[in-house]
Amino acid sequence: MQTLLEAIRPTTFIRSEKLSGYLGIDLTIATETFQHTGSFKFRAAYNVALNVENEHLIAASSGNFGQALAYSAKLLGKKCHVVMPETSAKVKVDAVSNYGAVADLIDVNSIGREERVAQLMEEFPDAYQASAYDDPLVIDGNSTLGDEIADYKEDFDFVVVPVGGAGLISGISKALCGKDDRAKLIGAEPLIANDAARSLRLGKIVRNEQEPQTIADGARTVSVGNYNWEIIREGVQAIVEVSEANIKQALCLYFQLANLKVEPTGALSLAAMLENHDSFGGKKVCVVVSGGNVDPAIFVQILAG
Amino acid sequence: MQTLLEAIRPTTFIRSEKLSGYLGIDLTIATETFQHTGSFKFRAAYNVALNVENEHLIAASSGNFGQALAYSAKLLGKKCHVVMPETSAKVKVDAVSNYGAVADLIDVNSIGREERVAQLMEEFPDAYQASAYDDPLVIDGNSTLGDEIADYKEDFDFVVVPVGGAGLISGISKALCGKDDRAKLIGAEPLIANDAARSLRLGKIVRNEQEPQTIADGARTVSVGNYNWEIIREGVQAIVEVSEANIKQALCLYFQLANLKVEPTGALSLAAMLENHDSFGGKKVCVVVSGGNVDPAIFVQILAG
Repeated sequence: MQTLLEAIRPTTFIRSEKLSGYLGIDLTIATETFQHTGSFKFRAAYNVALNVENEHLIAASSGNFGQALAYSAKLLGKKCHVVMPETSAKVKVDAVSNYGAVADLIDVNSIGREERVAQLMEEFPDAYQASAYDDPLVIDGNSTLGDEIADYKEDFDFVVVPVGGAGLISGISKALCGKDDRAKLIGAEPLIANDAARSLRLGKIVRNEQEPQTIADGARTVSVGNYNWEIIREGVQAIVEVSEANIKQALCLYFQLANLKVEPTGALSLAAMLENHDSFGGKKVCVVVSGGNVDPAIFVQILAG
Repeated sequence: MQTLLEAIRPTTFIRSEKLSGYLGIDLTIATETFQHTGSFKFRAAYNVALNVENEHLIAASSGNFGQALAYSAKLLGKKCHVVMPETSAKVKVDAVSNYGAVADLIDVNSIGREERVAQLMEEFPDAYQASAYDDPLVIDGNSTLGDEIADYKEDFDFVVVPVGGAGLISGISKALCGKDDRAKLIGAEPLIANDAARSLRLGKIVRNEQEPQTIADGARTVSVGNYNWEIIREGVQAIVEVSEANIKQALCLYFQLANLKVEPTGALSLAAMLENHDSFGGKKVCVVVSGGNVDPAIFVQILAG
């Protein structure tokens, strides 16, 4: 059985003269696109699967956390159910199944995801209900990426991180706190899903009324988690709210100038450079790319403009 | 002034459970897509620019070597002319210009590339005429990638490398020779541009009658170089000839299963896995991706099938 640090892959740091030159920013990309299962979520999921005593894990996720939990459960010989809408892309359902987990497909018009998870928890009372972000084990898992950024040789002015449920940025905040007092930690969130930015302004958790339909599907969360909030309210300097157009533009710039395939949510931190260039121009910035799993049809559509 | 080993970026080794699982091959990807200027050519170009005494470099290249030479010249404060067809993609011309070199655009119906290079050499007799592959300095530069593969912790059964002018595979061959006697070195070449495979079969350099119009534009060479030939005739076990369909399929598999953006020429080594699966199934294989610079429109066209 591998420890978390044995199991994860180190993040991939990439520097692109073309992209830095184009933006006039001294940019370092920390990309999790080559992490196990293609996103940072493996750090969280493995840490959960490793540390809970339960032999069975249950979660609702149509995205990266489901794949990461399924693969972590496989590596650790545990059972896993992932509740997904039956309309999920086939590649995502197949990925969960291929990692040996049960993809529990639901008709979201008949039953909510949380409701179905509750049903499964009743059926399997010994299972652990895993949250994609609101769990100290998730935050600790994600903090390993913050450790890697702190250990990287550059003195960054800013570290910029995509925000959905705030699982990643809270982990990075925990890691950087005290270690790297120079770098300011900045979140990047879709403008049409700006609950975290509003929460930071109001000093309390604000919820979206419904799942916002941003193209950054990893940021379609209704609110940040409670554990995450207690960390980011202190550790995050600001959250840049980015337009859908800038998310798409950032994805294209990664592709054309840095040879990097990212998913829309992963492009949020670069989109913040476009959105708020005055703050970042001429600075040393680490942009975190959270993952690279995107439906090819959506990618082609964005690339074709 | 940086030495070659200080100037180059180490290659990026990537392992993808999804891609390995899909193919039934224990695959390690060594990708040069994040090398300076987006391809392995920087290793060669920098080594040339560093070691020749001439303060001016001249080459014909519409592709990766031109960009790499332009950037190397910039880093070393040398002058550089790159002869390119005036029909070259604007992004390629801009890349050469942005690195500070002169993009010398020609009408290929009026004058051949070699002829124009000869004109420039007459105009600038103190310049060095740089070849993209047929030069011992190029081979030595590329051998650094072979050193990295030899130093990697895996014992590979096969190391598979794209072949155009054979600059890369001859460099890797030179590095692996004696260091790693276990791994068999295999070339991957487009079937419709198979001069290297035919050369190996006949025991002498065979030339294509004209530039073959393979989608792998880095392999549109008329023949391998003389210096390259002397190395690969001994060091390369076989060259797999791959179909255009398998090149495209390999590019799509990288994108979908490994989150990797590669150019068609870079996909040749994975295409060899598809072409000749019986030889590679169940083996430990290192596939080298030579670069990632591809016109977005061509990429989208391939991805859309």
